[in-house]
Amino acid sequence: MSSPSSPPREDTVAVVGVGLIGGSLAGAVRQRGLARRVIGVGRDPQRLAAAQQAGLLDEFTCDLHAAAAESSLMVFCTPVDKIAAQAQQAFATARPGTLFTDAGSVKGPICSDLAAWATGPKVFLGAHPLAGSERAGFEHADPQLFEDRMCVITPLPAHAEQDIARLTRFWQQLGMQTVRMSPADHDAAVACTSHVPHVVAAALAATLRDDQRPLTATGFRDTTRVAAGDPDLWTAILLQNARSVTDGLQAVDAELAAFRTAIERSDPAALKTLLETAKTKRDALTDISRR
Amino acid sequence: MSSPSSPPREDTVAVVGVGLIGGSLAGAVRQRGLARRVIGVGRDPQRLAAAQQAGLLDEFTCDLHAAAAESSLMVFCTPVDKIAAQAQQAFATARPGTLFTDAGSVKGPICSDLAAWATGPKVFLGAHPLAGSERAGFEHADPQLFEDRMCVITPLPAHAEQDIARLTRFWQQLGMQTVRMSPADHDAAVACTSHVPHVVAAALAATLRDDQRPLTATGFRDTTRVAAGDPDLWTAILLQNARSVTDGLQAVDAELAAFRTAIERSDPAALKTLLETAKTKRDALTDISRR
Repeated sequence: MSSPSSPPREDTVAVVGVGLIGGSLAGAVRQRGLARRVIGVGRDPQRLAAAQQAGLLDEFTCDLHAAAAESSLMVFCTPVDKIAAQAQQAFATARPGTLFTDAGSVKGPICSDLAAWATGPKVFLGAHPLAGSERAGFEHADPQLFEDRMCVITPLPAHAEQDIARLTRFWQQLGMQTVRMSPADHDAAVACTSHVPHVVAAALAATLRDDQRPLTATGFRDTTRVAAGDPDLWTAILLQNARSVTDGLQAVDAELAAFRTAIERSDPAALKTLLETAKTKRDALTDISRR
Repeated sequence: MSSPSSPPREDTVAVVGVGLIGGSLAGAVRQRGLARRVIGVGRDPQRLAAAQQAGLLDEFTCDLHAAAAESSLMVFCTPVDKIAAQAQQAFATARPGTLFTDAGSVKGPICSDLAAWATGPKVFLGAHPLAGSERAGFEHADPQLFEDRMCVITPLPAHAEQDIARLTRFWQQLGMQTVRMSPADHDAAVACTSHVPHVVAAALAATLRDDQRPLTATGFRDTTRVAAGDPDLWTAILLQNARSVTDGLQAVDAELAAFRTAIERSDPAALKTLLETAKTKRDALTDISRR
């Protein structure tokens, strides 16, 4: 459907890395008609063919340069330690006016490595859609993954408002809310909201003895759910955001020490105050459905 | 419905403390026809009348002694630091043959305080159904709460097999699996599977700054969900199980330190190994639906 009142759409969106996030993104762009065609880019033609078969892609290729030459918008959904190098390569064949963005969970190193591409005619502008799952692979892709979720867009001072507006519109057309932050502010915030919780969940899961497994209930499962995430992806994320993550871990250590002291001293008033503070913070979070 | 082949059922089950657990239990006993009648016991007649109105109770009373005199089975679903004293009171008027049990999350102190009642004619035998929610109040009661969940029964050496069998049957008739453990073994295990995760979730929730709230996604919500639990209940639980909880917190501290070292040294191999161990442990947990 196309009419004079249709919202602007991209000609060709290339999604590099067709896993859970890339597959969901490609499927969402197709389902919402946000581009004339969606190309999947990856290493394994069999996997890409299966993703096409699943209705997530119009076309696919293993040739990053060829995809770049045909794209108006290219979204890198590959591991955070691969994005900058892949984007550098792709720029070589991209046409003027092409916008590059990504879905990486750490923005500082990527945006810094690609800072030379903040201004046109070919532009990289970082983004982080806060949506995901502990599951991996396009088989778990969900075109509704982004709906009502937050996307952080991380421009540098050199970025043009027009490019920021174009990218903001793209993520909003996927049903997302958007917020603009510097890469550094983004990384400090998600360290606390995502990366440190991942480490803490993993540490908890690691302490479980096999014979204790039958005594786990929903509480343990919820608290450790993210620890099932892909170890390679998370190794890259944690190391790319090392400074903010270690700062965040220190803050958690301090909190845990306060709890331990209150318990060791058998101090109900202090312990209750700690638990009340935590409850107040947690209660302030509205529920969002898990997709 | 009653026939010669009907399973044995209790005459009168009294549930002391009609909150989320007590209300769910009362409702389940009624729904499954496990007793001729279910009496709710509490402090607030208006709340109890509302629970009766909601279909959870046949009758209610604020008189613990009167309820004890009429019960064949009495289940204490009150806070863990109140159960032993209330049971002691109730024993005064209970009839011979009455079985007392509880749903407390810590078993050592309760079972020790009530050790004199391990043998008849009136018996206390501790239990811990591993089911619950961060929500409080009978309004959130769910008669299906216990289905397919685990119930730990914690006899002392002095308990008679016949009493253990009777209580085991009761919890199994609610749809639960049962396991028998000493109170000390139970407390050490649930420290790791429930109490320490609660402290860790609370510590994480407490570190969240208000301005970071928009950047929380499902991961943060899941990891911190239990921190919304009732601070009074959890103060009592953590202090009653202080030794095991502080031991468990030490184990988590050691894991967190290993993560921190790997991140600070930028050691991808070490970090990946830690994440893989955690993932293996987490993947070994089958999913259970959250009720």
